Amino acid sequence: MCNALKIEPIGLIETPFREPVGTPIQPSRAKGVRGKVRVDARFRAGLRDLEGFERIWLVYWFHKAPAPALAVTPFLDQRQRGVFATRAPARPTPIGISAVRLIQVEGCVLEVADVDIIDGTPLLDIKPYVPEFDSYPASKAGWFDGSNSGVELADDRFTDTTAAGSE
Amino acid sequence: MCNALKIEPIGLIETPFREPVGTPIQPSRAKGVRGKVRVDARFRAGLRDLEGFERIWLVYWFHKAPAPALAVTPFLDQRQRGVFATRAPARPTPIGISAVRLIQVEGCVLEVADVDIIDGTPLLDIKPYVPEFDSYPASKAGWFDGSNSGVELADDRFTDTTAAGSE
Repeated sequence: MCNALKIEPIGLIETPFREPVGTPIQPSRAKGVRGKVRVDARFRAGLRDLEGFERIWLVYWFHKAPAPALAVTPFLDQRQRGVFATRAPARPTPIGISAVRLIQVEGCVLEVADVDIIDGTPLLDIKPYVPEFDSYPASKAGWFDGSNSGVELADDRFTDTTAAGSE
Repeated sequence: MCNALKIEPIGLIETPFREPVGTPIQPSRAKGVRGKVRVDARFRAGLRDLEGFERIWLVYWFHKAPAPALAVTPFLDQRQRGVFATRAPARPTPIGISAVRLIQVEGCVLEVADVDIIDGTPLLDIKPYVPEFDSYPASKAGWFDGSNSGVELADDRFTDTTAAGSE
């Protein structure tokens, strides 16, 4: 693995969800669900000015993801799709992004809402959500536009125990 | 570094920008700029169904980022801000996300537009842009909402040669 890059978590995400099954599949389907983001004390100065942003991106490691697959059946579909055309956790690089609501910053702890993340998830980065950079409300969304699934919570399809992220 | 996670790039991003200076600072300020995303052949099956999405998230490694800093002066401001309240590349985990326009998929090569990325950037992941998950047009954006900077291209503020990402 001569090209391997090393990253170290900058904190931990605490949520009510202990396992993939029953975890909301996206922030938009986790309205009001609270969580805490505990950032390592050494990064505290980096959190300045974060208050004032209504949403933040959490970039994190899918630590309970199964081994990567190139074809997956997403929660909102009954057909197999290429994994890069889905948000499934079983990805070659098991990194997730979620635009959660920022409620409060207190020292190194962020209180957040609309959390679709499993408890104990390693945090890799925090970015401010900026509509000019991130918001494209009318963007066409392929197979997803044809889905009328109202599913909110994950079932057991991505719960393989040979977790991609466990060291 | 007992907690280090290892990731391997899944491809490479080709753009007209060889150095940080002069690279657009965000997709919204890189309208029409074309690039190519070359995905490793072994991941080809994962690209199925991607066509049909107007935009995709590129998740990538800031390979020319300077050493991380906790306080940075962002391109769109004159004041220092906590790095997690900015999209600056000089982050503890130098991972970037950009919602670029998907023009075409041909085999393992994606043609994309609105590219704010430096040539040769290691690609970590591709995700479909889904408005329900990603678009919050009215989200308040802290210091950014007070910025009236029309800056489009990066200057030399993040060009330290001790690049965080170089191996």
